[in-house]
Amino acid sequence: MTVVRALQHDDFDAWLPLWKGYLEFYETELEDEITRHTFERLIDTSTDMFGALALNDDGEAVGMVNWLTHPGTWSRGQYVYLEDLFVSVNARGTGAGRALIEHVQTWAETAGATKVYWLTADSNKTAQQLYDRVATKTGFIHYQIDK
Amino acid sequence: MTVVRALQHDDFDAWLPLWKGYLEFYETELEDEITRHTFERLIDTSTDMFGALALNDDGEAVGMVNWLTHPGTWSRGQYVYLEDLFVSVNARGTGAGRALIEHVQTWAETAGATKVYWLTADSNKTAQQLYDRVATKTGFIHYQIDK
Amino acid sequence: MTVVRALQHDDFDAWLPLWKGYLEFYETELEDEITRHTFERLIDTSTDMFGALALNDDGEAVGMVNWLTHPGTWSRGQYVYLEDLFVSVNARGTGAGRALIEHVQTWAETAGATKVYWLTADSNKTAQQLYDRVATKTGFIHYQIDK
Amino acid sequence: MTVVRALQHDDFDAWLPLWKGYLEFYETELEDEITRHTFERLIDTSTDMFGALALNDDGEAVGMVNWLTHPGTWSRGQYVYLEDLFVSVNARGTGAGRALIEHVQTWAETAGATKVYWLTADSNKTAQQLYDRVATKTGFIHYQIDK
Repeated sequence: MTVVRALQHDDFDAWLPLWKGYLEFYETELEDEITRHTFERLIDTSTDMFGALALNDDGEAVGMVNWLTHPGTWSRGQYVYLEDLFVSVNARGTGAGRALIEHVQTWAETAGATKVYWLTADSNKTAQQLYDRVATKTGFIHYQIDK
Repeated sequence: MTVVRALQHDDFDAWLPLWKGYLEFYETELEDEITRHTFERLIDTSTDMFGALALNDDGEAVGMVNWLTHPGTWSRGQYVYLEDLFVSVNARGTGAGRALIEHVQTWAETAGATKVYWLTADSNKTAQQLYDRVATKTGFIHYQIDK
Repeated sequence: MTVVRALQHDDFDAWLPLWKGYLEFYETELEDEITRHTFERLIDTSTDMFGALALNDDGEAVGMVNWLTHPGTWSRGQYVYLEDLFVSVNARGTGAGRALIEHVQTWAETAGATKVYWLTADSNKTAQQLYDRVATKTGFIHYQIDK
Repeated sequence: MTVVRALQHDDFDAWLPLWKGYLEFYETELEDEITRHTFERLIDTSTDMFGALALNDDGEAVGMVNWLTHPGTWSRGQYVYLEDLFVSVNARGTGAGRALIEHVQTWAETAGATKVYWLTADSNKTAQQLYDRVATKTGFIHYQIDK
Protein backbone atom coordinates (compact mmCIF):
# COMPACT_ATOMS: atom_id res chain seq x y z
CA MET A 1 0.00 0.00 0.00
CA THR A 2 1.38 3.40 -1.00
CA VAL A 3 1.86 6.03 1.67
CA VAL A 4 2.27 9.68 0.69
CA ARG A 5 3.84 12.22 3.01
CA ALA A 6 5.31 15.72 2.86
CA LEU A 7 8.87 16.07 1.60
CA GLN A 8 11.34 16.54 4.44
CA HIS A 9 14.73 18.05 4.98
CA ASP A 10 16.63 14.74 4.89
CA ASP A 11 14.83 13.36 1.82
CA PHE A 12 17.23 14.79 -0.75
CA ASP A 13 18.95 11.47 -1.57
CA ALA A 14 15.64 9.65 -1.91
CA TRP A 15 14.03 12.42 -3.91
CA LEU A 16 16.91 13.04 -6.35
CA PRO A 17 16.54 9.87 -8.50
CA LEU A 18 12.81 10.55 -8.90
CA TRP A 19 13.47 14.15 -9.88
CA LYS A 20 16.11 13.02 -12.37
CA GLY A 21 13.79 10.37 -13.79
CA TYR A 22 11.18 13.04 -14.23
CA LEU A 23 13.56 15.41 -16.02
CA GLU A 24 14.74 12.59 -18.23
CA PHE A 25 11.15 11.82 -19.23
CA TYR A 26 10.89 15.44 -20.41
CA GLU A 27 14.36 15.27 -22.01
CA THR A 28 15.47 18.15 -19.84
CA GLU A 29 18.68 18.88 -18.02
CA LEU A 30 19.06 21.37 -15.20
CA GLU A 31 22.12 22.75 -13.44
CA ASP A 32 22.74 21.04 -10.11
CA GLU A 33 22.25 24.39 -8.41
CA ILE A 34 18.72 24.71 -9.73
CA THR A 35 17.90 21.19 -8.59
CA ARG A 36 19.23 21.94 -5.12
CA HIS A 37 17.42 25.30 -5.07
CA THR A 38 14.15 23.65 -6.03
CA PHE A 39 14.54 21.01 -3.33
CA GLU A 40 15.18 23.74 -0.77
CA ARG A 41 12.15 25.71 -1.91
CA LEU A 42 9.99 22.57 -1.68
CA ILE A 43 10.88 22.08 1.99
CA ASP A 44 11.03 25.78 2.92
CA THR A 45 7.71 26.53 4.61
CA SER A 46 7.97 30.22 3.70
CA THR A 47 7.60 29.55 -0.03
CA ASP A 48 4.44 28.73 -1.98
CA MET A 49 6.09 25.59 -3.39
CA PHE A 50 5.47 22.16 -1.89
CA GLY A 51 6.51 18.55 -2.36
CA ALA A 52 5.51 15.05 -1.30
CA LEU A 53 6.89 11.55 -1.70
CA ALA A 54 5.08 8.25 -2.29
CA LEU A 55 6.58 5.36 -0.32
CA ASN A 56 6.01 1.68 -1.02
CA ASP A 57 5.55 -1.09 1.57
CA ASP A 58 9.30 -1.21 2.14
CA GLY A 59 9.40 2.56 2.82
CA GLU A 60 11.18 3.24 -0.45
CA ALA A 61 10.41 6.47 -2.29
CA VAL A 62 8.73 5.44 -5.56
CA GLY A 63 7.02 8.66 -6.59
CA MET A 64 7.10 12.40 -6.13
CA VAL A 65 4.81 15.33 -6.68
CA ASN A 66 5.57 19.06 -6.59
CA TRP A 67 2.93 21.77 -6.50
CA LEU A 68 2.65 25.48 -5.97
CA THR A 69 -0.09 27.96 -5.24
CA HIS A 70 -0.92 31.25 -6.87
CA PRO A 71 -3.85 33.66 -6.70
CA GLY A 72 -6.46 33.94 -9.44
CA THR A 73 -8.48 36.89 -10.67
CA TRP A 74 -11.80 35.06 -10.29
CA SER A 75 -11.34 33.94 -6.72
CA ARG A 76 -10.55 34.79 -3.13
CA GLY A 77 -8.94 31.38 -2.81
CA GLN A 78 -5.68 30.17 -4.21
CA TYR A 79 -5.24 27.90 -7.20
CA VAL A 80 -3.03 24.86 -6.80
CA TYR A 81 -0.83 24.15 -9.81
CA LEU A 82 0.40 20.56 -9.68
CA GLU A 83 3.59 21.15 -11.62
CA ASP A 84 5.54 17.87 -11.49
CA LEU A 85 4.43 14.26 -11.01
CA PHE A 86 6.58 11.19 -11.39
CA VAL A 87 6.36 7.52 -10.45
CA SER A 88 9.34 5.22 -10.91
CA VAL A 89 8.95 2.62 -13.64
CA ASN A 90 8.78 -0.33 -11.24
CA ALA A 91 5.98 1.24 -9.23
CA ARG A 92 3.64 2.05 -12.09
CA GLY A 93 0.21 0.50 -11.84
CA THR A 94 0.42 0.34 -8.02
CA GLY A 95 -1.77 3.37 -7.42
CA ALA A 96 1.15 5.63 -6.50
CA GLY A 97 0.27 8.28 -9.09
CA ARG A 98 -3.31 8.42 -7.98
CA ALA A 99 -2.25 8.57 -4.31
CA LEU A 100 0.06 11.51 -5.07
CA ILE A 101 -2.71 13.44 -6.82
CA GLU A 102 -5.10 12.69 -3.95
CA HIS A 103 -2.50 13.97 -1.50
CA VAL A 104 -2.38 17.29 -3.33
CA GLN A 105 -6.15 17.43 -3.52
CA THR A 106 -6.48 16.88 0.24
CA TRP A 107 -3.81 19.47 0.89
CA ALA A 108 -5.69 21.92 -1.32
CA GLU A 109 -8.95 21.38 0.53
CA THR A 110 -7.26 21.96 3.88
CA ALA A 111 -5.65 25.14 2.55
CA GLY A 112 -8.99 26.46 1.30
CA ALA A 113 -7.84 26.39 -2.32
CA THR A 114 -10.39 26.83 -5.07
CA LYS A 115 -9.06 24.31 -7.53
CA VAL A 116 -6.21 21.96 -8.39
CA TYR A 117 -4.99 21.90 -11.98
CA TRP A 118 -2.14 20.64 -14.12
CA LEU A 119 -0.95 20.46 -17.70
CA THR A 120 0.06 17.37 -19.61
CA ALA A 121 1.28 16.61 -23.08
CA ASP A 122 -1.63 15.89 -25.39
CA SER A 123 0.40 12.94 -26.66
CA ASN A 124 0.81 11.37 -23.22
CA LYS A 125 -2.20 9.09 -23.45
CA THR A 126 -0.95 6.78 -20.68
CA ALA A 127 -1.05 9.53 -18.08
CA GLN A 128 -4.39 10.72 -19.37
CA GLN A 129 -5.97 7.36 -18.57
CA LEU A 130 -5.39 8.21 -14.92
CA TYR A 131 -6.17 11.92 -15.22
CA ASP A 132 -9.51 11.25 -16.92
CA ARG A 133 -10.56 9.26 -13.85
CA VAL A 134 -9.63 11.86 -11.23
CA ALA A 135 -10.08 15.21 -12.98
CA THR A 136 -11.76 17.04 -15.85
CA LYS A 137 -10.13 17.75 -19.18
CA THR A 138 -11.24 21.35 -19.68
CA GLY A 139 -10.55 21.77 -23.38
CA PHE A 140 -8.02 24.51 -22.68
CA ILE A 141 -4.66 24.42 -24.40
CA HIS A 142 -1.34 26.00 -23.52
CA TYR A 143 0.57 28.76 -25.34
CA GLN A 144 4.01 29.93 -24.36
CA ILE A 145 6.51 32.67 -25.21
CA ASP A 146 10.01 31.69 -24.21
CA LYS A 147 12.38 34.43 -23.29
CA MET B 1 -2.63 53.64 -32.67
CA THR B 2 -3.13 51.61 -29.50
CA VAL B 3 -1.28 52.62 -26.36
CA VAL B 4 -0.94 50.18 -23.48
CA ARG B 5 -0.18 51.31 -19.95
CA ALA B 6 -0.29 49.95 -16.41
CA LEU B 7 -3.65 49.91 -14.65
CA GLN B 8 -3.97 52.77 -12.17
CA HIS B 9 -5.92 53.57 -9.05
CA ASP B 10 -8.53 55.74 -10.78
CA ASP B 11 -9.13 53.35 -13.70
CA PHE B 12 -11.91 51.35 -12.04
CA ASP B 13 -14.75 52.88 -14.07
CA ALA B 14 -12.90 52.44 -17.36
CA TRP B 15 -11.78 48.92 -16.51
CA LEU B 16 -15.11 47.58 -15.23
CA PRO B 17 -16.94 47.30 -18.60
CA LEU B 18 -13.97 45.43 -20.08
CA TRP B 19 -13.83 43.07 -17.10
CA LYS B 20 -17.59 42.48 -17.37
CA GLY B 21 -17.33 41.88 -21.12
CA TYR B 22 -14.62 39.35 -20.45
CA LEU B 23 -16.66 37.51 -17.79
CA GLU B 24 -19.66 37.51 -20.12
CA PHE B 25 -17.56 35.90 -22.86
CA TYR B 26 -16.80 33.10 -20.41
CA GLU B 27 -20.44 33.01 -19.23
CA THR B 28 -19.27 33.71 -15.70
CA GLU B 29 -20.66 35.88 -12.95
CA LEU B 30 -18.68 37.04 -9.92
CA GLU B 31 -19.75 38.78 -6.73
CA ASP B 32 -19.09 42.52 -6.85
CA GLU B 33 -16.75 42.07 -3.88
CA ILE B 34 -14.51 39.70 -5.83
CA THR B 35 -14.41 42.09 -8.78
CA ARG B 36 -13.45 44.96 -6.49
CA HIS B 37 -10.91 42.76 -4.68
CA THR B 38 -9.34 41.73 -7.98
CA PHE B 39 -9.09 45.33 -9.14
CA GLU B 40 -7.41 46.27 -5.86
CA ARG B 41 -4.96 43.38 -6.17
CA LEU B 42 -4.13 44.43 -9.74
CA ILE B 43 -3.11 47.93 -8.63
CA ASP B 44 -1.56 46.90 -5.30
CA THR B 45 2.19 46.82 -5.91
CA SER B 46 2.70 44.35 -3.06
CA THR B 47 0.85 41.55 -4.87
CA ASP B 48 2.10 39.35 -7.71
CA MET B 49 -0.94 40.30 -9.82
CA PHE B 50 -0.78 43.00 -12.48
CA GLY B 51 -3.03 44.73 -15.00
CA ALA B 52 -2.82 47.00 -18.02
CA LEU B 53 -5.25 48.83 -20.27
CA ALA B 54 -5.17 49.40 -24.02
CA LEU B 55 -6.29 52.88 -25.04
CA ASN B 56 -7.38 53.96 -28.53
CA ASP B 57 -6.57 57.25 -30.25
CA ASP B 58 -9.27 59.00 -28.24
CA GLY B 59 -7.82 57.74 -24.96
CA GLU B 60 -10.69 55.32 -24.42
CA ALA B 61 -9.98 51.99 -22.73
CA VAL B 62 -10.65 49.32 -25.36
CA GLY B 63 -8.79 46.34 -23.94
CA MET B 64 -7.42 44.89 -20.74
CA VAL B 65 -4.94 42.27 -19.70
CA ASN B 66 -4.29 40.75 -16.27
CA TRP B 67 -1.28 38.64 -15.41
CA LEU B 68 0.42 37.14 -12.39
CA THR B 69 3.77 35.64 -11.59
CA HIS B 70 4.66 32.41 -9.84
CA PRO B 71 7.86 30.44 -9.35
CA GLY B 72 8.60 27.24 -11.26
CA THR B 73 10.53 24.13 -10.27
CA TRP B 74 12.75 24.27 -13.35
CA SER B 75 13.87 27.86 -12.99
CA ARG B 76 15.37 30.59 -10.87
CA GLY B 77 13.15 33.06 -12.68
CA GLN B 78 9.47 33.57 -12.40
CA TYR B 79 6.84 32.41 -14.85
CA VAL B 80 4.30 34.95 -16.06
CA TYR B 81 0.78 33.58 -16.37
CA LEU B 82 -1.29 35.84 -18.60
CA GLU B 83 -4.62 35.02 -17.03
CA ASP B 84 -7.17 37.38 -18.64
CA LEU B 85 -7.20 39.17 -22.00
CA PHE B 86 -10.10 41.08 -23.50
CA VAL B 87 -10.62 43.57 -26.31
CA SER B 88 -13.98 45.30 -26.77
CA VAL B 89 -15.92 44.25 -29.86
CA ASN B 90 -15.48 47.59 -31.64
CA ALA B 91 -11.71 47.53 -31.22
CA ARG B 92 -11.07 44.04 -32.58
CA GLY B 93 -8.73 43.91 -35.53
CA THR B 94 -6.99 47.12 -34.48
CA GLY B 95 -3.95 45.40 -32.97
CA ALA B 96 -5.07 46.00 -29.38
CA GLY B 97 -4.85 42.31 -28.42
CA ARG B 98 -1.37 41.99 -29.83
CA ALA B 99 -0.29 45.22 -28.11
CA LEU B 100 -1.58 43.91 -24.78
CA ILE B 101 0.35 40.65 -25.15
CA GLU B 102 3.48 42.55 -26.15
CA HIS B 103 3.10 44.76 -23.08
CA VAL B 104 3.12 41.68 -20.86
CA GLN B 105 6.08 40.23 -22.74
CA THR B 106 8.10 43.43 -22.29
CA TRP B 107 7.13 43.56 -18.62
CA ALA B 108 8.28 39.95 -18.25
CA GLU B 109 11.64 40.66 -19.83
CA THR B 110 12.22 43.63 -17.54
CA ALA B 111 11.28 41.52 -14.52
CA GLY B 112 13.71 38.78 -15.53
CA ALA B 113 10.92 36.25 -16.03
CA THR B 114 11.68 32.99 -17.77
CA LYS B 115 8.54 32.68 -19.84
CA VAL B 116 5.07 34.05 -20.49
CA TYR B 117 2.24 31.58 -20.94
CA TRP B 118 -1.53 31.39 -21.12
CA LEU B 119 -4.36 28.97 -21.68
CA THR B 120 -7.15 29.27 -24.21
CA ALA B 121 -10.15 27.22 -25.20
CA ASP B 122 -9.25 24.76 -27.94
CA SER B 123 -12.49 25.84 -29.64
CA ASN B 124 -11.56 29.54 -29.70
CA LYS B 125 -10.01 29.51 -33.18
CA THR B 126 -10.32 33.28 -33.61
CA ALA B 127 -8.02 34.01 -30.69
CA GLN B 128 -5.64 31.29 -31.82
CA GLN B 129 -5.06 33.07 -35.12
CA LEU B 130 -3.37 35.80 -33.08
CA TYR B 131 -1.72 33.47 -30.58
CA ASP B 132 -0.15 31.36 -33.32
CA ARG B 133 1.61 34.47 -34.60
CA VAL B 134 3.06 35.62 -31.25
CA ALA B 135 3.60 32.41 -29.29
CA THR B 136 4.06 28.65 -29.47
CA LYS B 137 1.29 26.11 -29.04
CA THR B 138 3.08 23.61 -26.81
CA GLY B 139 0.76 20.64 -27.18
CA PHE B 140 0.00 20.67 -23.46
CA ILE B 141 -3.58 20.41 -22.31
CA HIS B 142 -5.26 21.40 -19.07
CA TYR B 143 -6.82 19.21 -16.37
CA GLN B 144 -8.68 20.53 -13.37
CA ILE B 145 -10.21 19.30 -10.12
CA ASP B 146 -12.80 21.73 -8.82
CA LYS B 147 -13.33 21.88 -5.12
CA MET C 1 -14.28 33.25 28.36
CA THR C 2 -12.75 34.64 25.19
CA VAL C 3 -12.89 32.59 22.02
CA VAL C 4 -10.62 33.42 19.10
CA ARG C 5 -11.38 32.27 15.57
CA ALA C 6 -10.27 33.05 12.02
CA LEU C 7 -11.79 36.08 10.33
CA GLN C 8 -14.55 35.12 7.91
CA HIS C 9 -16.22 36.53 4.85
CA ASP C 10 -19.31 37.87 6.67
CA ASP C 11 -17.36 39.44 9.56
CA PHE C 12 -16.86 42.84 7.94
CA ASP C 13 -19.45 44.68 10.06
CA ALA C 14 -18.15 43.17 13.30
CA TRP C 15 -14.52 43.76 12.37
CA LEU C 16 -14.86 47.34 11.15
CA PRO C 17 -15.36 49.07 14.56
CA LEU C 18 -12.31 47.25 15.95
CA TRP C 19 -10.22 48.22 12.94
CA LYS C 20 -11.37 51.84 13.29
CA GLY C 21 -10.65 51.83 17.03
CA TYR C 22 -7.18 50.54 16.23
CA LEU C 23 -6.52 53.24 13.62
CA GLU C 24 -7.81 55.89 16.02
CA PHE C 25 -5.38 54.69 18.69
CA TYR C 26 -2.58 55.31 16.19
CA GLU C 27 -4.16 58.61 15.07
CA THR C 28 -4.33 57.30 11.54
CA GLU C 29 -6.95 57.60 8.84
CA LEU C 30 -7.18 55.38 5.79
CA GLU C 31 -9.27 55.58 2.64
CA ASP C 32 -12.32 53.30 2.79
CA GLU C 33 -10.92 51.47 -0.23
CA ILE C 34 -7.76 50.52 1.63
CA THR C 35 -9.79 49.30 4.61
CA ARG C 36 -11.96 47.18 2.34
CA HIS C 37 -8.89 45.93 0.44
CA THR C 38 -7.20 44.95 3.69
CA PHE C 39 -10.28 43.08 4.90
CA GLU C 40 -10.42 41.20 1.60
CA ARG C 41 -6.75 40.30 1.81
CA LEU C 42 -7.23 39.05 5.37
CA ILE C 43 -9.92 36.58 4.29
CA ASP C 44 -8.35 35.70 0.92
CA THR C 45 -6.59 32.38 1.43
CA SER C 46 -4.22 33.07 -1.45
CA THR C 47 -2.51 35.97 0.36
CA ASP C 48 0.07 35.82 3.14
CA MET C 49 -2.09 38.08 5.33
CA PHE C 50 -4.37 36.67 8.02
CA GLY C 51 -6.88 37.87 10.61
CA ALA C 52 -8.74 36.61 13.66
CA LEU C 53 -11.43 37.91 15.99
CA ALA C 54 -11.80 37.54 19.74
CA LEU C 55 -15.42 36.95 20.81
CA ASN C 56 -16.78 37.40 24.32
CA ASP C 57 -19.34 35.16 26.06
CA ASP C 58 -22.15 36.83 24.16
CA GLY C 59 -20.42 36.14 20.86
CA GLU C 60 -19.58 39.80 20.33
CA ALA C 61 -16.32 40.69 18.59
CA VAL C 62 -14.18 42.46 21.20
CA GLY C 63 -10.72 42.14 19.72
CA MET C 64 -8.88 41.62 16.46
CA VAL C 65 -5.45 40.60 15.32
CA ASN C 66 -3.87 40.75 11.86
CA TRP C 67 -0.66 39.03 10.90
CA LEU C 68 1.39 38.24 7.83
CA THR C 69 4.23 35.94 6.95
CA HIS C 70 7.46 36.63 5.14
CA PRO C 71 10.68 34.67 4.56
CA GLY C 72 13.90 35.42 6.41
CA THR C 73 17.51 35.12 5.34
CA TRP C 74 18.48 33.02 8.36
CA SER C 75 15.77 30.43 8.04
CA ARG C 76 13.96 27.89 5.92
CA GLY C 77 10.79 28.73 7.82
CA GLN C 78 8.66 31.79 7.61
CA TYR C 79 8.56 34.62 10.11
CA VAL C 80 5.18 35.71 11.41
CA TYR C 81 4.82 39.46 11.77
CA LEU C 82 1.90 40.26 14.08
CA GLU C 83 1.11 43.63 12.57
CA ASP C 84 -2.11 44.81 14.26
CA LEU C 85 -3.65 43.99 17.64
CA PHE C 86 -6.63 45.69 19.22
CA VAL C 87 -9.03 44.99 22.07
CA SER C 88 -12.05 47.20 22.62
CA VAL C 89 -11.93 49.36 25.74
CA ASN C 90 -14.68 47.45 27.55
CA ALA C 91 -12.94 44.12 27.07
CA ARG C 92 -9.51 45.09 28.36
CA GLY C 93 -8.26 43.02 31.25
CA THR C 94 -10.39 40.03 30.19
CA GLY C 95 -7.52 38.13 28.61
CA ALA C 96 -8.63 38.91 25.06
CA GLY C 97 -5.25 40.38 24.06
CA ARG C 98 -3.37 37.40 25.37
CA ALA C 99 -5.81 35.01 23.68
CA LEU C 100 -5.29 36.79 20.35
CA ILE C 101 -1.50 36.53 20.63
CA GLU C 102 -1.76 32.87 21.58
CA HIS C 103 -3.96 32.26 18.56
CA VAL C 104 -1.25 33.65 16.29
CA GLN C 105 1.40 31.64 18.10
CA THR C 106 -0.55 28.40 17.63
CA TRP C 107 -1.18 29.27 13.99
CA ALA C 108 2.55 29.88 13.56
CA GLU C 109 3.47 26.53 15.04
CA THR C 110 1.03 24.72 12.79
CA ALA C 111 2.43 26.55 9.77
CA GLY C 112 5.99 25.60 10.70
CA ALA C 113 7.01 29.22 11.24
CA THR C 114 10.30 29.99 12.92
CA LYS C 115 9.20 32.91 15.07
CA VAL C 116 6.41 35.37 15.81
CA TYR C 117 7.35 39.01 16.29
CA TRP C 118 5.82 42.44 16.55
CA LEU C 119 6.71 46.07 17.14
CA THR C 120 5.25 48.37 19.74
CA ALA C 121 5.74 51.97 20.78
CA ASP C 122 8.39 52.23 23.46
CA SER C 123 6.01 54.59 25.23
CA ASN C 124 3.13 52.08 25.33
CA LYS C 125 3.93 50.67 28.76
CA THR C 126 0.43 49.25 29.26
CA ALA C 127 0.76 46.92 26.30
CA GLN C 128 4.29 45.99 27.32
CA GLN C 129 3.02 44.62 30.64
CA LEU C 130 1.30 41.91 28.60
CA TYR C 131 4.08 41.52 26.03
CA ASP C 132 6.73 41.04 28.71
CA ARG C 133 4.78 38.03 29.97
CA VAL C 134 4.33 36.29 26.62
CA ALA C 135 7.41 37.28 24.60
CA THR C 136 10.97 38.56 24.74
CA LYS C 137 11.96 42.18 24.33
CA THR C 138 14.97 41.76 22.04
CA GLY C 139 16.57 45.17 22.44
CA PHE C 140 16.13 45.88 18.73
CA ILE C 141 14.71 49.21 17.65
CA HIS C 142 13.00 50.31 14.46
CA TYR C 143 14.20 52.74 11.78
CA GLN C 144 12.12 53.83 8.84
CA ILE C 145 12.46 55.80 5.60
CA ASP C 146 9.10 57.04 4.39
CA LYS C 147 8.65 57.48 0.71
CA MET D 1 34.05 55.59 -4.93
CA THR D 2 31.66 52.79 -3.95
CA VAL D 3 29.49 51.21 -6.61
CA VAL D 4 26.44 49.18 -5.60
CA ARG D 5 24.83 46.65 -7.92
CA ALA D 6 22.39 43.77 -7.76
CA LEU D 7 23.70 40.42 -6.58
CA GLN D 8 24.34 38.04 -9.48
CA HIS D 9 24.53 34.35 -10.10
CA ASP D 10 28.34 34.15 -10.08
CA ASP D 11 28.81 36.34 -6.97
CA PHE D 12 28.68 33.50 -4.44
CA ASP D 13 32.41 33.45 -3.70
CA ALA D 14 32.57 37.24 -3.30
CA TRP D 15 29.40 37.38 -1.21
CA LEU D 16 30.21 34.50 1.15
CA PRO D 17 32.91 36.23 3.26
CA LEU D 18 30.63 39.25 3.77
CA TRP D 19 27.73 37.00 4.77
CA LYS D 20 29.99 35.13 7.19
CA GLY D 21 31.33 38.39 8.63
CA TYR D 22 27.77 39.50 9.17
CA LEU D 23 26.77 36.27 10.91
CA GLU D 24 29.89 36.46 13.08
CA PHE D 25 28.95 39.99 14.13
CA TYR D 26 25.64 38.57 15.37
CA GLU D 27 27.39 35.54 16.88
CA THR D 28 25.28 33.28 14.72
CA GLU D 29 26.06 30.12 12.84
CA LEU D 30 23.95 28.70 10.06
CA GLU D 31 24.05 25.37 8.23
CA ASP D 32 25.80 25.64 4.87
CA GLU D 33 22.55 24.57 3.24
CA ILE D 34 20.70 27.56 4.64
CA THR D 35 23.44 29.91 3.46
CA ARG D 36 23.29 28.41 -0.02
CA HIS D 37 19.49 28.52 0.01
CA THR D 38 19.51 32.18 1.02
CA PHE D 39 21.97 33.06 -1.72
CA GLU D 40 19.78 31.29 -4.26
CA ARG D 41 16.67 33.09 -3.03
CA LEU D 42 18.49 36.43 -3.27
CA ILE D 43 19.27 35.90 -6.96
CA ASP D 44 15.99 34.12 -7.83
CA THR D 45 13.79 36.75 -9.46
CA SER D 46 10.64 34.85 -8.50
CA THR D 47 11.14 35.42 -4.76
CA ASP D 48 10.49 38.58 -2.75
CA MET D 49 14.06 38.53 -1.42
CA PHE D 50 16.82 40.65 -2.96
CA GLY D 51 20.52 41.34 -2.54
CA ALA D 52 23.16 43.83 -3.62
CA LEU D 53 26.91 44.18 -3.29
CA ALA D 54 29.05 47.27 -2.69
CA LEU D 55 32.27 47.28 -4.73
CA ASN D 56 35.31 49.44 -4.05
CA ASP D 57 37.50 51.12 -6.66
CA ASP D 58 39.28 47.84 -7.32
CA GLY D 59 35.98 46.07 -7.96
CA GLU D 60 36.24 44.12 -4.72
CA ALA D 61 33.05 43.33 -2.83
CA VAL D 62 33.28 45.24 0.45
CA GLY D 63 29.65 45.32 1.57
CA MET D 64 26.34 43.54 1.15
CA VAL D 65 22.70 44.24 1.77
CA ASN D 66 19.72 41.89 1.71
CA TRP D 67 16.11 43.02 1.71
CA LEU D 68 12.66 41.59 1.23
CA THR D 69 9.19 42.92 0.59
CA HIS D 70 5.92 42.16 2.29
CA PRO D 71 2.45 43.71 2.19
CA GLY D 72 1.09 45.87 5.00
CA THR D 73 -2.45 46.32 6.30
CA TRP D 74 -2.31 50.10 5.98
CA SER D 75 -1.18 50.26 2.39
CA ARG D 76 -1.65 49.22 -1.20
CA GLY D 77 2.11 49.31 -1.60
CA GLN D 78 4.69 46.95 -0.29
CA TYR D 79 6.97 47.53 2.66
CA VAL D 80 10.67 46.95 2.18
CA TYR D 81 12.36 45.25 5.13
CA LEU D 82 16.12 45.78 4.93
CA GLU D 83 17.06 42.64 6.80
CA ASP D 84 20.87 42.38 6.58
CA LEU D 85 23.57 45.01 6.10
CA PHE D 86 27.29 44.48 6.38
CA VAL D 87 30.45 46.35 5.42
CA SER D 88 33.85 44.72 5.80
CA VAL D 89 36.06 46.20 8.51
CA ASN D 90 38.56 47.71 6.06
CA ALA D 91 35.86 49.54 4.14
CA ARG D 92 34.12 51.20 7.06
CA GLY D 93 33.94 54.97 6.87
CA THR D 94 34.12 54.91 3.05
CA GLY D 95 30.40 55.52 2.53
CA ALA D 96 29.70 51.90 1.58
CA GLY D 97 26.99 51.47 4.22
CA ARG D 98 25.22 54.60 3.18
CA ALA D 99 25.50 53.64 -0.50
CA LEU D 100 23.94 50.24 0.24
CA ILE D 101 20.99 51.81 2.06
CA GLU D 102 20.52 54.32 -0.76
CA HIS D 103 20.51 51.46 -3.26
CA VAL D 104 17.64 49.83 -1.39
CA GLN D 105 15.80 53.13 -1.13
CA THR D 106 16.07 53.73 -4.87
CA TRP D 107 14.97 50.17 -5.55
CA ALA D 108 11.98 50.72 -3.27
CA GLU D 109 10.94 53.89 -5.07
CA THR D 110 11.12 52.17 -8.43
CA ALA D 111 9.05 49.29 -7.11
CA GLY D 112 6.39 51.66 -5.77
CA ALA D 113 7.03 50.62 -2.17
CA THR D 114 5.55 52.65 0.65
CA LYS D 115 8.47 52.57 3.05
CA VAL D 116 11.85 51.05 3.81
CA TYR D 117 12.52 49.94 7.37
CA TRP D 118 14.99 47.95 9.45
CA LEU D 119 15.76 46.90 12.98
CA THR D 120 19.01 47.37 14.82
CA ALA D 121 20.32 46.59 18.27
CA ASP D 122 19.69 49.47 20.65
CA SER D 123 23.26 48.94 21.84
CA ASN D 124 24.77 49.34 18.36
CA LYS D 125 25.47 53.06 18.63
CA THR D 126 28.04 53.03 15.82
CA ALA D 127 25.48 51.93 13.24
CA GLN D 128 22.93 54.35 14.62
CA GLN D 129 25.21 57.29 13.82
CA LEU D 130 24.63 56.44 10.17
CA TYR D 131 20.97 55.46 10.54
CA ASP D 132 20.11 58.72 12.29
CA ARG D 133 21.35 60.59 9.23
CA VAL D 134 19.39 58.62 6.61
CA ALA D 135 16.23 57.51 8.41
CA THR D 136 13.89 58.12 11.34
CA LYS D 137 14.06 56.31 14.66
CA THR D 138 10.37 55.64 15.20
CA GLY D 139 10.39 54.79 18.89
CA PHE D 140 9.06 51.32 18.17
CA ILE D 141 10.71 48.33 19.80
CA HIS D 142 10.77 44.67 18.88
CA TYR D 143 9.22 41.71 20.68
CA GLN D 144 9.70 38.11 19.64
CA ILE D 145 8.40 34.65 20.47
CA ASP D 146 10.83 31.99 19.37
CA LYS D 147 9.43 28.65 18.42
